[in-house]
Amino acid sequence: MKQYWSKKVAKLNPYIAGEQPKQKFIKLNTNENAWPQSENVEKAILSVTNKLRLYPDPEATELKKIIAEAEGLSEEKVFCANGSDEVLAQAFMAYFDPETAINTFDVTYSFYPVWAQMFDLTLNHIALKEDYTADIKSFYGGKNAVIANPNAPTGIALEISEIEEIVKNTSGVVIVDEAYYGFGAKSASSLIEKYDNLVVVRTLSKSHGLAGLRVGFALAQENLIQALRAVRDGYNSYPVDMLAQAGAAAAFCDTEYYKNVGEKIMRAREYTVAELLKMGVCCLPSSANFIFMKCEKKPAEEVFSQLRERGILVRFFNAKRTKDYLRVTIGTQEEMEAFIKAIGEIL
Amino acid sequence: MKQYWSKKVAKLNPYIAGEQPKQKFIKLNTNENAWPQSENVEKAILSVTNKLRLYPDPEATELKKIIAEAEGLSEEKVFCANGSDEVLAQAFMAYFDPETAINTFDVTYSFYPVWAQMFDLTLNHIALKEDYTADIKSFYGGKNAVIANPNAPTGIALEISEIEEIVKNTSGVVIVDEAYYGFGAKSASSLIEKYDNLVVVRTLSKSHGLAGLRVGFALAQENLIQALRAVRDGYNSYPVDMLAQAGAAAAFCDTEYYKNVGEKIMRAREYTVAELLKMGVCCLPSSANFIFMKCEKKPAEEVFSQLRERGILVRFFNAKRTKDYLRVTIGTQEEMEAFIKAIGEIL
Repeated sequence: MKQYWSKKVAKLNPYIAGEQPKQKFIKLNTNENAWPQSENVEKAILSVTNKLRLYPDPEATELKKIIAEAEGLSEEKVFCANGSDEVLAQAFMAYFDPETAINTFDVTYSFYPVWAQMFDLTLNHIALKEDYTADIKSFYGGKNAVIANPNAPTGIALEISEIEEIVKNTSGVVIVDEAYYGFGAKSASSLIEKYDNLVVVRTLSKSHGLAGLRVGFALAQENLIQALRAVRDGYNSYPVDMLAQAGAAAAFCDTEYYKNVGEKIMRAREYTVAELLKMGVCCLPSSANFIFMKCEKKPAEEVFSQLRERGILVRFFNAKRTKDYLRVTIGTQEEMEAFIKAIGEIL
Repeated sequence: MKQYWSKKVAKLNPYIAGEQPKQKFIKLNTNENAWPQSENVEKAILSVTNKLRLYPDPEATELKKIIAEAEGLSEEKVFCANGSDEVLAQAFMAYFDPETAINTFDVTYSFYPVWAQMFDLTLNHIALKEDYTADIKSFYGGKNAVIANPNAPTGIALEISEIEEIVKNTSGVVIVDEAYYGFGAKSASSLIEKYDNLVVVRTLSKSHGLAGLRVGFALAQENLIQALRAVRDGYNSYPVDMLAQAGAAAAFCDTEYYKNVGEKIMRAREYTVAELLKMGVCCLPSSANFIFMKCEKKPAEEVFSQLRERGILVRFFNAKRTKDYLRVTIGTQEEMEAFIKAIGEIL
């Protein structure tokens, strides 16, 4: 019907998030961290519940300081918001004008085209090679770019030297979306002092096991950070609540714990990829907490359904270049053993 | 400098929130509730801290159900987001097209013009009368409208019959922003079953003493709610984190506690208005948790500064129709006694 809807929203194709099931599943469908947050998080949250009647610090100053210190940057080069999705939406508004194209991969995070539609922007989809790796030279001479690194849903990461070449050869802003940082890929944050047109976007959802807390951040030179602040204050001044600021700050301090979590997930990933290979199932080389596995013996959608019947949720993207694959989040070792067993039965 | 900024954001005049001071003040500047949240809120927050690795329910289903039941509406008529500011931003995108004007008051919430600028919309500022009450007939025949009720920073509320006349005589959508519900004004939610073009927006920040938690909601018929969901899924799918959903749901159940809090604030408001009147200071008739007091003996900005020197923060809006007034949040009885004492010394 859509009476009273604005024209833009009436024709919008919104992002479709992975299912959040009410029943008990082995949940390998939305790339959540298999492990819980560090134990200081709860304590930090409890330490501010007596202040909830007050507005949170709109700048999330304490959290910014902690992130800045960990990244070796000054606090003016950090910006926090409600998950990296919000940071990315804000960045699309902050840097991109309707008439200029934004380079991205043809197979990448499916929220980019939604934001482009939402803010009247033009995405230029650069085709990945047949093996889903990138020809970075196709980005050269571009006006702007948004690059998921590692890419989703492929899991393939670029080298930082490749990111640097793209940044050097792009006249406008390059957004590097590092949602899947923490599982083997290097961060482009080391390039921030050198380039004034680079924005690195991260989240605590995956690396820090805090998807439920909604905290993401951007790292960039101060001029670009100020544009994000302007967008925030043009939309919703207090996007990160008090509990989220406290919990995220505590988590970011527990470096050792999360290093260990990352290693456990990388080991479970190696196990899964090796076991699949034994069954003749290939995966793209992943630097993320998920794998993109090719289904050749049976249609991917059928494998998806049969996994679901066995109580295992994964993700299937029904599009030309992704329909032969399943994206499988790396869970605990036990969960991946159950997954491998199920795949063995299905194939 | 603003190199790399999008044209729109470069010329944006962002919203300026009230100061969140680091030092100890009697804080009467951002309309927070003087009283803490009910005691079940902390328990509810603690009950979900072991699930933070998972994404929150994007629909906030449990919270929606509780709000729906309290309001006597079905859950399809409720939508939750990150504070009422986010709900309002989403509503501006969801319902308004660039070429159509949106009626609002000339003295009202200062975020409306920011959203209008952000989303290329046109506000039609209808002048309040000399006493800051509204001539509702000036809204008749309008395409769309956004009305703060009670209005801010005046605190003056419309009757529900007046809201109904505006809704009946507006061809598009009427947004009623009830951020200051809970302190004496009636809600337009009673009109929702009757009108398909009415959206009521509320927040838990003021009435429920949860500004730090960032939860707001909209009440409307299903078609209008679906447009808000489309905007959410075109920007950030999970705006309300897991802790906020749990805490807000618990608060919304504690009806008696918040009724009592509302009454305490209304009593402190009556005390303050009466004491000011004894000193010859007039206030507009407020149905909110703040008063708008006229400074005739000294310039308002000077009174603002002198209050600040005495450790009391209030809000001064330096614009044509507001520059002779101060907006003063109603705190506890003790805080208002300190405020009255300070005003006595200053004037």
